[in-house]
Amino acid sequence: MASSLSVLLPAVLRGEPRAIARAITAIENRNPAEPGEADELLRQVFPHSGRALLAGLTGAPGAGKSTLADSLAGLLRQRAKTVGIVAVDPSSPFTGGAILGDRIRMQRHHGDSGVFIRSMATRGALGGLAPAAADVATLLDAAGKQVVLIETVGVGQDEVDIVRLADVTVVILAPGMGDDVQTMKAGIMEIADVFAINKADRPGADRVEQELRAMLALTHREDGWSPPIVKTVASEGRGVEELWIAVEAFVSHLRDQDLLARKRALHLRRRLVDLLGERLLARVLAGLPEARLDEYVGAIAARRMDPYSAVEDMISGWEKR
Amino acid sequence: MASSLSVLLPAVLRGEPRAIARAITAIENRNPAEPGEADELLRQVFPHSGRALLAGLTGAPGAGKSTLADSLAGLLRQRAKTVGIVAVDPSSPFTGGAILGDRIRMQRHHGDSGVFIRSMATRGALGGLAPAAADVATLLDAAGKQVVLIETVGVGQDEVDIVRLADVTVVILAPGMGDDVQTMKAGIMEIADVFAINKADRPGADRVEQELRAMLALTHREDGWSPPIVKTVASEGRGVEELWIAVEAFVSHLRDQDLLARKRALHLRRRLVDLLGERLLARVLAGLPEARLDEYVGAIAARRMDPYSAVEDMISGWEKR
Repeated sequence: MASSLSVLLPAVLRGEPRAIARAITAIENRNPAEPGEADELLRQVFPHSGRALLAGLTGAPGAGKSTLADSLAGLLRQRAKTVGIVAVDPSSPFTGGAILGDRIRMQRHHGDSGVFIRSMATRGALGGLAPAAADVATLLDAAGKQVVLIETVGVGQDEVDIVRLADVTVVILAPGMGDDVQTMKAGIMEIADVFAINKADRPGADRVEQELRAMLALTHREDGWSPPIVKTVASEGRGVEELWIAVEAFVSHLRDQDLLARKRALHLRRRLVDLLGERLLARVLAGLPEARLDEYVGAIAARRMDPYSAVEDMISGWEKR
Repeated sequence: MASSLSVLLPAVLRGEPRAIARAITAIENRNPAEPGEADELLRQVFPHSGRALLAGLTGAPGAGKSTLADSLAGLLRQRAKTVGIVAVDPSSPFTGGAILGDRIRMQRHHGDSGVFIRSMATRGALGGLAPAAADVATLLDAAGKQVVLIETVGVGQDEVDIVRLADVTVVILAPGMGDDVQTMKAGIMEIADVFAINKADRPGADRVEQELRAMLALTHREDGWSPPIVKTVASEGRGVEELWIAVEAFVSHLRDQDLLARKRALHLRRRLVDLLGERLLARVLAGLPEARLDEYVGAIAARRMDPYSAVEDMISGWEKR
């Protein structure tokens, strides 16, 4: 790829969909122990990033995240904004089906090159999904997408980590899904800057809203923001404009309070630490012969050694090289 | 703690609940950069582990995991087996409420010291929840619990990692929760050795079973096992004995095929690598002044530097010390 980078890079920066797709594949397939090619691409792309608005969309499976993301993309295209969508599903080990899904979703936008959609699943992201999703968001940003939507299934820490890349996070609920407010976990509720109650034409939407309001009345945010609640029917495009107004209002609030730059610096810091951890581990493991690792595991399984002493041994072995 | 370790350790190995609780708190509060005390405890505890059966229980919020775990614990106590329960909620940032919940759950077992229950949430586990949960399971194992149940909310990669500590994994579904088979993610379905359809007295249980059977007919496992489906009503103890029979049947299958030791070695290997990653990162960050990290973040935010070059810089700085 080194030789073709001089061709690929300008094409990515011009926003050519095939070049973007190739670059993302390189990111997904990189080996953290030998990340040379993908890193070189990201290194050269990085200075062109930092201009997009990054919005995270999260919620339980079935809440309608993809439909809502597609509706938002449609709205933004009407306003002549370019859009990138990164759809992350940490619980799915499949990628093949996701790519088929992407094609179907892209078709809804009539082959419009102003929208780029890419799904990412666990397999293929050797060094962890959150760092890879961050890199893909950076790439879409550098490729000139003015808004990057990061869509993820929200329950675990992994999803929270992914959403924490974003400038603004929308948590999507839907009535009658067993994911009503009582069962929604605090970790997800805490990261919501805007709530969308999707499928709001279904029975129970008002109850979800009441519960949400009751819960919000008990919470206090350090940034002084009160997360608005917007009802949507994404499949019909209803409420989508109101949702975007709420998103933009939050970003304006951050800018007014001089918090946007601070938030982005915090995100970059977390990302730097994640990347450091990934690369350190890959480096040390690459220097450790597989047979040596097997010996450690054998000794631990036989209880002749404990994992803590084994790790100390491995680290000091590396330091003494 | 170093001086009190000589008192704490024998008390943990005797299975004294207060000693176990103190030891878990030490594990939860350890700082990966200076893990001296908790590590020393775990080092000394580790040779006494490896005897318990580790069973993972996972499923969507509201499927009834805790009730099912408590019912299983009741059944096992009737058979004079000692039981430890580690309840992990990666999405909850709270620990205080969890401890209150543990007390309520413990009371159901009438203060029986043969059952020990502990909840773990994200906060308090500085070095990642999966490694900390593994350490707590090891501690309960060494403390003489014959069965350790690891209970976790199942959707993301984090939960999958936690459940992957276990010898056998039970995936819990419930009818009418929006977590039916279509929305259940492949990652979770793949790790199920036994399925429990809990709340099976509710409408829709048969449909969940049919969908599950249809899905299972399409899957093929390398270990030659067909995951059984057991219907339970945990709140009334119904089906709980059948569920345990299915769990034991799977463990016998692993033993017969000579797969149990291999599975445990794989788990130890993964755990060793996780621990290595945690410790490496902590070591390098501890050697990096906060101000230096701020400088990197500032340079990256201003796009004067990229994260990949910064990480290379940090690693080579550490190697040259």
